[in-house]
Amino acid sequence: MPIREATPGDWPRIWPVWHRVVAAGDTYTWDPDTSEEEARSLWTGSGKRVYVTEDDDGAVVASAYLAPNYGGPAAGIANAGFMVDPGRTGRALAEHVLAEAAEQGYRAMVFNAVVETNPAVRLWTSLGFRVLGTVPDAFDHPRHGRVGLHIMHRAM
Amino acid sequence: MPIREATPGDWPRIWPVWHRVVAAGDTYTWDPDTSEEEARSLWTGSGKRVYVTEDDDGAVVASAYLAPNYGGPAAGIANAGFMVDPGRTGRALAEHVLAEAAEQGYRAMVFNAVVETNPAVRLWTSLGFRVLGTVPDAFDHPRHGRVGLHIMHRAM
Repeated sequence: MPIREATPGDWPRIWPVWHRVVAAGDTYTWDPDTSEEEARSLWTGSGKRVYVTEDDDGAVVASAYLAPNYGGPAAGIANAGFMVDPGRTGRALAEHVLAEAAEQGYRAMVFNAVVETNPAVRLWTSLGFRVLGTVPDAFDHPRHGRVGLHIMHRAM
Repeated sequence: MPIREATPGDWPRIWPVWHRVVAAGDTYTWDPDTSEEEARSLWTGSGKRVYVTEDDDGAVVASAYLAPNYGGPAAGIANAGFMVDPGRTGRALAEHVLAEAAEQGYRAMVFNAVVETNPAVRLWTSLGFRVLGTVPDAFDHPRHGRVGLHIMHRAM
């Protein structure tokens, strides 16, 4: 499926995926009731590069952003976020964004808050990320109760 | 020295301390050239509670903010930042902010990016924080070269 950099006009097609993932409340440290306007700013604001995966009919089935994880003297470390329609794998998009990060000169990528019960942990590990540490009892999971948040890292 | 919650009118007295610390480029992952306007938004914006320490003449010698480190299902974990005039210790302010965080119902506090060569690491450790993990080679230090960024954690 084609992966490309998003245009501003893609947002209305990203939002349903975004909303579905965040409203489930089991993978993101954002308010499940986040409004579309706020979501747009979180996902596409402040220096973020945004990517989308389209299916054969041109529907957006996944999106990612890529941005510096820190500013100033640590701006060489990237951060990224991924929203994927349930039932799809984000692997191809993840590989695309990692290649983009390397091309843009980032030295490494950090995820600050990966819910430890998120199946994507296995994807990140298979792509070379490792858990640097885990914030214990940080995330109120709708089914698993309080679970930890992994900080994950991968050198480019 | 008295410690109190800041008022909007305190900002012009916080800014010189803020600027001195960030311009040194050895402790914060913010651009050393951050403008006053941007600094104000970083330090006092989006739901942050701000505190100041005054010396006997009423000058601001230190400031801190307290805010959720995450949103939504992880909003029970606090984050804080500290700016202290060189030559002063931030210990009393740190203890004050920890007590405030407990009172405001946070379960724990996380620092996302403590430069590993920052002498404050010793202060945090003595206050019960521990290093959850370290992002390697993340921060370009003006004297030590590339150093790591600690993620530090303390339960309330």
